[in-house]
Amino acid sequence: MPAKLRFSANINTFNACADRYVLSGYGKRLTTEELIQAATRVEGLTGVEVVGFWHVNDDNVERVYRQIRDAGLEVTCVTPDIWASAKWGWGSFASNDPEIRRQAIHEVKKSMEWAKQMHCEIVDLWFGQDGYDYPFQADFLAAWDRIIEGTIECAEYLPDVKLAIEYKPKEPRTHCFIGTVGKTLLLLQKVNKPNVGAMIDVGHALMAYENAAESAALLHYFGNKLFYMHFNDNWRLWDDDMTVGSVHTIEMLELLYWLDRLNYQGWYALDIFPYREDGVRAAGESIRWIQGLHGLLDKIGRERIAEIIAKGDAMEASAVIREALLG
Amino acid sequence: MPAKLRFSANINTFNACADRYVLSGYGKRLTTEELIQAATRVEGLTGVEVVGFWHVNDDNVERVYRQIRDAGLEVTCVTPDIWASAKWGWGSFASNDPEIRRQAIHEVKKSMEWAKQMHCEIVDLWFGQDGYDYPFQADFLAAWDRIIEGTIECAEYLPDVKLAIEYKPKEPRTHCFIGTVGKTLLLLQKVNKPNVGAMIDVGHALMAYENAAESAALLHYFGNKLFYMHFNDNWRLWDDDMTVGSVHTIEMLELLYWLDRLNYQGWYALDIFPYREDGVRAAGESIRWIQGLHGLLDKIGRERIAEIIAKGDAMEASAVIREALLG
Amino acid sequence: MPAKLRFSANINTFNACADRYVLSGYGKRLTTEELIQAATRVEGLTGVEVVGFWHVNDDNVERVYRQIRDAGLEVTCVTPDIWASAKWGWGSFASNDPEIRRQAIHEVKKSMEWAKQMHCEIVDLWFGQDGYDYPFQADFLAAWDRIIEGTIECAEYLPDVKLAIEYKPKEPRTHCFIGTVGKTLLLLQKVNKPNVGAMIDVGHALMAYENAAESAALLHYFGNKLFYMHFNDNWRLWDDDMTVGSVHTIEMLELLYWLDRLNYQGWYALDIFPYREDGVRAAGESIRWIQGLHGLLDKIGRERIAEIIAKGDAMEASAVIREALLG
Amino acid sequence: MPAKLRFSANINTFNACADRYVLSGYGKRLTTEELIQAATRVEGLTGVEVVGFWHVNDDNVERVYRQIRDAGLEVTCVTPDIWASAKWGWGSFASNDPEIRRQAIHEVKKSMEWAKQMHCEIVDLWFGQDGYDYPFQADFLAAWDRIIEGTIECAEYLPDVKLAIEYKPKEPRTHCFIGTVGKTLLLLQKVNKPNVGAMIDVGHALMAYENAAESAALLHYFGNKLFYMHFNDNWRLWDDDMTVGSVHTIEMLELLYWLDRLNYQGWYALDIFPYREDGVRAAGESIRWIQGLHGLLDKIGRERIAEIIAKGDAMEASAVIREALLG
Repeated sequence: MPAKLRFSANINTFNACADRYVLSGYGKRLTTEELIQAATRVEGLTGVEVVGFWHVNDDNVERVYRQIRDAGLEVTCVTPDIWASAKWGWGSFASNDPEIRRQAIHEVKKSMEWAKQMHCEIVDLWFGQDGYDYPFQADFLAAWDRIIEGTIECAEYLPDVKLAIEYKPKEPRTHCFIGTVGKTLLLLQKVNKPNVGAMIDVGHALMAYENAAESAALLHYFGNKLFYMHFNDNWRLWDDDMTVGSVHTIEMLELLYWLDRLNYQGWYALDIFPYREDGVRAAGESIRWIQGLHGLLDKIGRERIAEIIAKGDAMEASAVIREALLG
Repeated sequence: MPAKLRFSANINTFNACADRYVLSGYGKRLTTEELIQAATRVEGLTGVEVVGFWHVNDDNVERVYRQIRDAGLEVTCVTPDIWASAKWGWGSFASNDPEIRRQAIHEVKKSMEWAKQMHCEIVDLWFGQDGYDYPFQADFLAAWDRIIEGTIECAEYLPDVKLAIEYKPKEPRTHCFIGTVGKTLLLLQKVNKPNVGAMIDVGHALMAYENAAESAALLHYFGNKLFYMHFNDNWRLWDDDMTVGSVHTIEMLELLYWLDRLNYQGWYALDIFPYREDGVRAAGESIRWIQGLHGLLDKIGRERIAEIIAKGDAMEASAVIREALLG
Repeated sequence: MPAKLRFSANINTFNACADRYVLSGYGKRLTTEELIQAATRVEGLTGVEVVGFWHVNDDNVERVYRQIRDAGLEVTCVTPDIWASAKWGWGSFASNDPEIRRQAIHEVKKSMEWAKQMHCEIVDLWFGQDGYDYPFQADFLAAWDRIIEGTIECAEYLPDVKLAIEYKPKEPRTHCFIGTVGKTLLLLQKVNKPNVGAMIDVGHALMAYENAAESAALLHYFGNKLFYMHFNDNWRLWDDDMTVGSVHTIEMLELLYWLDRLNYQGWYALDIFPYREDGVRAAGESIRWIQGLHGLLDKIGRERIAEIIAKGDAMEASAVIREALLG
Repeated sequence: MPAKLRFSANINTFNACADRYVLSGYGKRLTTEELIQAATRVEGLTGVEVVGFWHVNDDNVERVYRQIRDAGLEVTCVTPDIWASAKWGWGSFASNDPEIRRQAIHEVKKSMEWAKQMHCEIVDLWFGQDGYDYPFQADFLAAWDRIIEGTIECAEYLPDVKLAIEYKPKEPRTHCFIGTVGKTLLLLQKVNKPNVGAMIDVGHALMAYENAAESAALLHYFGNKLFYMHFNDNWRLWDDDMTVGSVHTIEMLELLYWLDRLNYQGWYALDIFPYREDGVRAAGESIRWIQGLHGLLDKIGRERIAEIIAKGDAMEASAVIREALLG
């Protein structure tokens, strides 16, 4: 169990969030510098994520990194953009077009370089566009071949940068190839590189009817592969990217318990879309919910929880949580 | 807001629960007398529900009622069985067979009589088998005609007994005609009788992607038609009939807040299926969760909540709930 | 049953579709004139929908209408934009801000005027932003008051233009007030105007676990209120806005059967988002699927279907559909 | 591609189906002999599945086998009952109780013996009760240890009998450990025995938001592990166990295409629950739907489909399927 939880958030949390109806966004568009400044206003936040080419590139990486450090923050994750422009629409690593695949791999390598330059350990590999929308549209076997091959190539490029596969069952495609914790681990086993692991985005797990605690346990069980965590919440059927604690109180508590039990030492990063909310408040709320729930585990006592789990006594679990929450 | 919440549970809560795999049930089968005794062991429980023909009939109704009273309990609801034997499999009120419809209406009238004899105000009208499983299987128009007609006939039979329509989107049929709060209100408007209203089963509302608080508000808005409440919890996609508080903490809190605000004065009844749990513990846990969450509303202050709702400030709502729960 | 189905599509079908990741869209942005030209390339399409302020305004309405007529098309629906810019983010008709409510009502009235000028019968009233995202964020009672009041005001403004309420359970809000066919009919009854009815968007119905055929029957049953139809398909859990016929073959067939049986005489309009597909092909496919399935009803014989439904014999239904589809 | 599809069904298909409301079942209870006779009345059915201890035991196995053979049928699968009585309620292979684990393994070994005696290649290993219902109820790591260990013990017991893991996301537990195709493959890799593979139950895949065609491809990709197929249909959100073809036409077609492409040579077995339908008709309908859709692949041409998939052209796929189905 970490002495103290470390919190991060993508700096885009503080930018205008858009959806397919309000394409110009619900809030105000900020510059990268303004986003970094916004991050400093979130109590408890000590890390930030950036997106490759959106926030950093070969020309500005040193400057942006200095701004982040000067703001008292660390870079915890770089996410290559292989999903946010039309050219990726039919896939990135799994595209039928070898030129697109080459470009996608190149983007990831660039993000790995920038991560390294910014002393950041993690690159987020989200294959959001690699999937299909309609029946009879995908060659599943070719897709897996290509994703495995591309991931190996990236992993070998910079072995001291970690790639964390971020799975999600759907959106923007109606079906994404790397959609569940199980498929993620299958990919990891084929890739078989020490610097390739996974992250859990809590909302993606909820969408997949996964219990994120169980998914974390599986990633641990199959080779200690939980590299990173994305926190948020939703109504279970879609990636609503809400603030932590807004819907799923008990499952979040179970997740936090298991992260400690599995000795997860990584960042507690937020991946929220505060469409209509102020990003600084939304991030602050999320952190305070995690801290509060984490403190509840201390109050209950992890030994006691371990005993209840060993017995599988759901009613005792209910009572203990209830008493801790409601007295 | 009621001075004190009154809790009830179907006495079958304390019986062996079965599912389609373990038809003989996970626990022990008890007699009606034993079930009543079990109910007395649940702290805070002062009412019980019974099922027509399962627990009461013309011959035993006085005796069973006396047992319940002697045990210090009230009868809060009688549920006619128009869904638990093969003959109802193709529908009850909406059956294509007029003889089955006649029998179903007869069952409801009997349950109304027994309710009256036991000084119970509510009869639960759940059209579980009225629906369809496959495409091209239902004449929707005829079904509504029949359900409306049968409900009016029952309502007129004993105007001082209240019929509470219990909606549910599916199970045992893959589609039930009276499946949502909206459809329920449409039925109520056509029936147009003061003694016909609705109950919300929280789990059924969750399955329908309803917010039970919103559904309660709608039943209030359209003619003060919320007659009764069934409490339980689930994982949102199926009627898991779990104990209150096990999954949805915040939505339950919002529901309890609105029940007060809407001046709901009825029973807080449990409708749980503790398949593998002890029924007495499961009911007790559910009651204590409701009490605890209800107490939290006092702690936060209903004025404060009303202000937050009026502003629609989700982050302030989050903060206030978090502080109340986690300090 | 109409002699011949009449097909329409929003001209935006032919424009670049965007989602929250690819905000600039997957395809090419076209002018209104180009969109109209694209519509003429869809075989079988004789109508188009336009969006108020996007495609028509006080200055250009006569010109755009002439372009549409010159292209051999009718205008079948005008949709006021009360959901696509940040100012609507916290609601339109149900906004807490009376000025926003006033502006929203104004937009609808303008669209009604333009509809009248273009000899279009239908204005689509979609309250996409009227709802909430988080718990404790909504005053349900006030919201219904406002939606009812605003709708009445619009209805009275131009009684010879029809308002068709388009319900949807979620998106862009996680919960929309007017989310199901039942709630829509409740609204219609309160509004109680002959020129206010509803449309079914097939995908919205699927998301709500509605059978669109049943929803059409209900709108018919409660006052002949089915004014318009939006066709598309999805994977049942989200508004994927796919082409007709791509996933749900049999349910679509059941819907087409019931539209005839209910004597629906309105337009068969497409509301698809062909993100990565060519809009002209996507619209054409959708029309040909509807035509093909509609032809299947002729082949099977509507009498025969009516007999099967009256019996409720699911296996006979299965056999008859199978033989018609597969020989 | 097999010369001719071979169809099987569990003989219980022809028995009364029960659910948690109608525990005595919707139809008539038959003896094993009557069930076998019923199977012979299904055109095209040449195989049957039986359940260990329900239909076969040490005393009757030879007699039952002879009855099945005399009826002109093969035994295609034996399913051990490790989920249908109260003692399994808290788990079988993953139970906290070593004695229950021992008994569960014993049951599987007995079913393997009976399978061998009946010249049946497949034993169905469904861990229906191995999971959890409530938060904080499961030790995920211990559960996987136990499931792996037990499966290995069974696999080694009779290496010439194949164990086919049948995954399912939920029911009867709200969460089952072996719930998705990905988790199944992880289990297979840990077990690492040539006689341990998987089956896909189409309905379970649909519930998990899997495309069964994709799941089949994955089982093929990771070691040719698709041993068996269970066919049925549902409304995607629950294991409704409906007849094939009743809801998902196109996805079923895609699955049949991929089974051929992956050179699946196993049985096409039905796992349906015709609660209110006649089992013989329901099985017959299911077989004819599979045959009809399979024939459609011949009509379209597998080469043509392969080309479309290679291009990923969803609209061409739509057109080709539409023309084949609707002319």
